[in-house]
Amino acid sequence: MKVVIIGGGAAGLSTASNIRKYDEDIEITVITRESYIAYSPCAIPYVLCGKVECFEDIVMHKPEDYLEKNINIVTKAEVFEITSNENKLKYYFNDGYLRVEKELSYDYLVIATGATSFIPLIGGTHLKGVFKIRTIEDGFKIKDWAEKYHNAVVVGAGLIGLETAYGLKEMGLKVIVTEMLPQIIPRSLDPDMASIVQHYMEKEGLQVILGNPIEEIVGGTRVEKVIIGDEVLDADMVIMATGIRPQIKLAKMAGCSIGRWAILVNEKMQTSVANIYAVGDCVEVYDAITGQNTQSPLGTTAVRQGKTAAKNIVGMCAEFKPVLNAMVSKIGELEFGAVGSTKSWAIQNGIDVISGESKALTKARYYPGAKTIDVKIICTLNGRIIGCQIIAEERVAERIDTMSLAIAKNVSCSELATMEFSYAPPVSMVIDPIILAAENACWKLSRLN
Amino acid sequence: MKVVIIGGGAAGLSTASNIRKYDEDIEITVITRESYIAYSPCAIPYVLCGKVECFEDIVMHKPEDYLEKNINIVTKAEVFEITSNENKLKYYFNDGYLRVEKELSYDYLVIATGATSFIPLIGGTHLKGVFKIRTIEDGFKIKDWAEKYHNAVVVGAGLIGLETAYGLKEMGLKVIVTEMLPQIIPRSLDPDMASIVQHYMEKEGLQVILGNPIEEIVGGTRVEKVIIGDEVLDADMVIMATGIRPQIKLAKMAGCSIGRWAILVNEKMQTSVANIYAVGDCVEVYDAITGQNTQSPLGTTAVRQGKTAAKNIVGMCAEFKPVLNAMVSKIGELEFGAVGSTKSWAIQNGIDVISGESKALTKARYYPGAKTIDVKIICTLNGRIIGCQIIAEERVAERIDTMSLAIAKNVSCSELATMEFSYAPPVSMVIDPIILAAENACWKLSRLN
Repeated sequence: MKVVIIGGGAAGLSTASNIRKYDEDIEITVITRESYIAYSPCAIPYVLCGKVECFEDIVMHKPEDYLEKNINIVTKAEVFEITSNENKLKYYFNDGYLRVEKELSYDYLVIATGATSFIPLIGGTHLKGVFKIRTIEDGFKIKDWAEKYHNAVVVGAGLIGLETAYGLKEMGLKVIVTEMLPQIIPRSLDPDMASIVQHYMEKEGLQVILGNPIEEIVGGTRVEKVIIGDEVLDADMVIMATGIRPQIKLAKMAGCSIGRWAILVNEKMQTSVANIYAVGDCVEVYDAITGQNTQSPLGTTAVRQGKTAAKNIVGMCAEFKPVLNAMVSKIGELEFGAVGSTKSWAIQNGIDVISGESKALTKARYYPGAKTIDVKIICTLNGRIIGCQIIAEERVAERIDTMSLAIAKNVSCSELATMEFSYAPPVSMVIDPIILAAENACWKLSRLN
Repeated sequence: MKVVIIGGGAAGLSTASNIRKYDEDIEITVITRESYIAYSPCAIPYVLCGKVECFEDIVMHKPEDYLEKNINIVTKAEVFEITSNENKLKYYFNDGYLRVEKELSYDYLVIATGATSFIPLIGGTHLKGVFKIRTIEDGFKIKDWAEKYHNAVVVGAGLIGLETAYGLKEMGLKVIVTEMLPQIIPRSLDPDMASIVQHYMEKEGLQVILGNPIEEIVGGTRVEKVIIGDEVLDADMVIMATGIRPQIKLAKMAGCSIGRWAILVNEKMQTSVANIYAVGDCVEVYDAITGQNTQSPLGTTAVRQGKTAAKNIVGMCAEFKPVLNAMVSKIGELEFGAVGSTKSWAIQNGIDVISGESKALTKARYYPGAKTIDVKIICTLNGRIIGCQIIAEERVAERIDTMSLAIAKNVSCSELATMEFSYAPPVSMVIDPIILAAENACWKLSRLN
């Protein structure tokens, strides 16, 4: 049996590795546009900030490593034709000045084409010094440029924008982050929680401008200024962290149904076309809270979808469940994470909710080095937990995971408030901040009835 | 209404505070033998090791603080008579050389008498330099003595024994830990996981002697030697960390039914005697895995039981659920925790189990400072998770909490393997070590069928 996978990111390679894990014989070919495979795009900002020494470090595997597992990787190659009724595709690569075309047949095709940066239609995005941030090559270019200049403007205060802004600040640049919405990290945090992260960023020396979209980038051959609302900012470089768009051109060519943003798949990761699977940033998934389609451009989602597709391809049974988009980030010393719905998002979706909050410590009060922790739990009026946001200088990720499980298992806030947590003075409080937030939610609910 | 609580530890004071939280009028009196209340006994080893500066720091509240909440605390007083059919008790305290007796009536009595150290019947335990470790006063005495001497033997390699041993080592003493069982931390860890902790302790300079009970403590007026099996160890001090015994004398006097070890209570924390509740180390609880009675001498259990009793006393409804004994400890830089049943304990209880293991990292492979993490998940042959043990130099406690919830909600290992975890390179791996262990368990189960 032959499987061809288009895309060498987390989703594509997770599919490949998992197929091999369960089946020794299937012929596996991965075709990718990029020169690098198996690197961690989430880690690019950590190379900029100097925590990770160099970009080479974040490349987990080389194509040769996959050859050892009998997985064939074709890099710098572009698929340009899929004939799905014949189970065939064509790709090309450049051999010097020569364009070489090849044809491949497959039993199963896996589209893992990911997403590209979305660049808004404004003037000046073509100027030198304007960068998107998506691939490791983007990382190289940004680092090279940043080493020579002083003022950076990062457009977009989502995760990647903020992480990159912090990285550039650590490189010694003066950095301004701009966001058209009135808060940072709008997708994952409510305004009250976002402002805690924002204060931290500002304390660390970043300037944040909210509520104004970028109007224009101005310069001769290279960027000189950025116009944001009424403000004209000096800029030697601009990072466009303005979102992503799923790459769906090939899926369309293959005849796959497309949803609102991306490729439609069922819970086995099958597209509407027989023998074609799709995984990763190029597909739509179900949101476990709203029941509607959504995007889940997370490394963990990609890896889990790859595993799901692989299992189904080898004839095992696996389903990808609706997502909660559990996420975490660490900027400087601040860790923040979220899972499920924000309060704002629930309200926008017509779900009546309350929130329970706690501000506590990460260790016993008397234990040196205890950090402040903020927890916010969102629940419906019948007590079902649908979201959680946590911010602290340590121990956030695993608490998000606990809450991810709680939401997935329909734990109510009163049940959470009586849950058994572990405790030792150097690592926790005798009553966990999550319990305090759950108790606060229960108290608010009791006053409603 | 009048409530009298006997015991000023976590269970008693949690009961008192929670009653006051829900009811402003109830008259609350707490009677305790000790001079100190509201301190964290779990923190004594951390004062010894110097992480926490002094014993005063671990006292969270003084009796005056409770008076502000209109909770009356009587310290250094001993209840010596309970007449439960008349809802009355008598206690005494010493006023200089004078023994003063008082009588109190109650509507509800809460027995939170805790436990005392168990000292085995061997020779020499009366010698100077032999200490139990239970109260803050024990802590004072141990610290004073340890400042003057050089060789310590800690008898018992449970949590408190190991934590204390490490504390004494940090004070500069040569420390030997002895344990009659063939492994350390037998209650919470399987031998394979315990040996990881043991190697760490040994690397840190502690000597561990397993599989030999203490025979005798030898000396003139103060301890000089300890006889363990064939070995004679020099010792200037001996810490008897040989377990605890619930204090049930008063409960017996009141006519409360006693189980195998401790006071029997129902899920509301009511004893067999009308209007008498019992909470904390002096009660027996249900083990969620075996369904049998067990002990749960944990601060978190005490706090949760106090809250349960309080709610029922004020007329709200609350149930204390069977325990998983979620625990965590940090010794030096090593954090280890467990929840549910060990593999050994399951086998002893006739439960057929397999275990899934992973050895992974706490951060992305390329991220500086990533620590090794060991996870072991125990599940029944139908895939139900019944226990978990985790060891790493960071981020263990919250993972134990996730597993506590997983076990409580009957999550299967295949379900856990597909669970949604959060990820960022500085704080986790893209596939969490818990997932890797769950996958390993699934794989072993699949080979059984």
